[in-house]
Amino acid sequence: MKWCRFQVGEQTAYGLVEGETVTAVVGSPFEGYTVTPTTYPLSAVKLRVPVIPPTFYAAGINYRQHLIEVARQRGEEPRFPTQADVGYRANNALIATDEPIIIPRDASDEVQYEGELVVVIGKKCRRVSEAEALDYVLGYTIGNDVSERTWQRTDRTLWRAKNTDTFKPMGPWIVTGLDPAELHVRIILNGREVFRYAVADAIFSVQHYISRMSQYLTLYPGDVLWMGTDGASENLKDGDVIEIAIDGIGVLRNPVVREQ
Amino acid sequence: MKWCRFQVGEQTAYGLVEGETVTAVVGSPFEGYTVTPTTYPLSAVKLRVPVIPPTFYAAGINYRQHLIEVARQRGEEPRFPTQADVGYRANNALIATDEPIIIPRDASDEVQYEGELVVVIGKKCRRVSEAEALDYVLGYTIGNDVSERTWQRTDRTLWRAKNTDTFKPMGPWIVTGLDPAELHVRIILNGREVFRYAVADAIFSVQHYISRMSQYLTLYPGDVLWMGTDGASENLKDGDVIEIAIDGIGVLRNPVVREQ
Repeated sequence: MKWCRFQVGEQTAYGLVEGETVTAVVGSPFEGYTVTPTTYPLSAVKLRVPVIPPTFYAAGINYRQHLIEVARQRGEEPRFPTQADVGYRANNALIATDEPIIIPRDASDEVQYEGELVVVIGKKCRRVSEAEALDYVLGYTIGNDVSERTWQRTDRTLWRAKNTDTFKPMGPWIVTGLDPAELHVRIILNGREVFRYAVADAIFSVQHYISRMSQYLTLYPGDVLWMGTDGASENLKDGDVIEIAIDGIGVLRNPVVREQ
Repeated sequence: MKWCRFQVGEQTAYGLVEGETVTAVVGSPFEGYTVTPTTYPLSAVKLRVPVIPPTFYAAGINYRQHLIEVARQRGEEPRFPTQADVGYRANNALIATDEPIIIPRDASDEVQYEGELVVVIGKKCRRVSEAEALDYVLGYTIGNDVSERTWQRTDRTLWRAKNTDTFKPMGPWIVTGLDPAELHVRIILNGREVFRYAVADAIFSVQHYISRMSQYLTLYPGDVLWMGTDGASENLKDGDVIEIAIDGIGVLRNPVVREQ
């Protein structure tokens, strides 16, 4: 199933996408729903962020090549994480597919994409094993963890480096029934594929993260876990279009605008 | 006004507290409300966390004496922050007044309180000046930023050090019309006042934080900003009762239970 959150006029609702058609539902995939007879052409609705998470988790550093690249840029030796410690991102920064990433006036030129698989929790879970972990997942979507690298180096926290308004594109929708270990992420800048990696190359798997997190905390329906990115990133500039594609899910596409 | 969120039977609603009486409202202080004729004795309702924030912000390091103490425990020189960088906490960890702080089996003995003023945003704000900032505040409540110090030192992020389930008591209610610079925080462990500090001793004020954050991000109704704590903290152990008191607001009181 392909779950979207969409807007028509002033109304926002959850919907099921089949081909080029959206069928509106009453309710949500998290609390239960009823399918309505109302359908729209996909091209006639505005897609919204597919879920507003109660808590917005991010693995952060979870791929070796990305870590090596970040360390190189800082002139440091890479240090690989020895345990799956999760970080946080913030809801203010979320935007939907097709909405613009806005680079603030005082940001440096080092504003970069990070294409990621996003796990969407479907059921409350606490102290689950790795073998059980995926049973608590509703499905998967796509995230772009846009980052301002100078702020990332200088500030005490990642607040504006990672969470400036519009810096967290997520979408276009949530797809159920996938095996995350089978997925590949492609990053496409202005129509050119700049990087491709296998989700399975992660240092810590989706199952491992969920199981470990759940030993200390309760995961709730709608919580999201961004799995981190691999490889080096390039700078985004005014007029660019950045796409993150995962076969089996779709394409998260955002234009880039620098504030004048 | 004193805004609470309370439960009677299976129903949770916002209410206005006057003396020992709660008057139920329809709606919320954030989206508008209607006062109902229904009242309850305060003693007959269960107080809930007064707001579930869209984003949960925390100043973290914002008082000199606390910073000096933390550095001393680590055998480091204290480094005072040069700019107001905000951090994040997580909704899973929120509990209401009177609910138990549960120390997990594998936590060390170094689980400590941090008594804090909590700012509750009332209106959407973006790029506001320090002079305007407090106009966007609904009111103030109290937080206890419970922290496991060994995890705080060893993990890559603060996830379980700060956000283990039950580690974020907040309440008992939100009080409007206060001047944060006039407030004093008292920390009371098993009936003994262990520390007292003036909110005004913060390195960065409420106004400064809100104004600076709002240059990069939009603050939304219900967002909370925990202002940090001052002084040293003591360990919490099974059977303790920890109270954070702010005159003009009230007392946030939580028993401590260590998991067997």
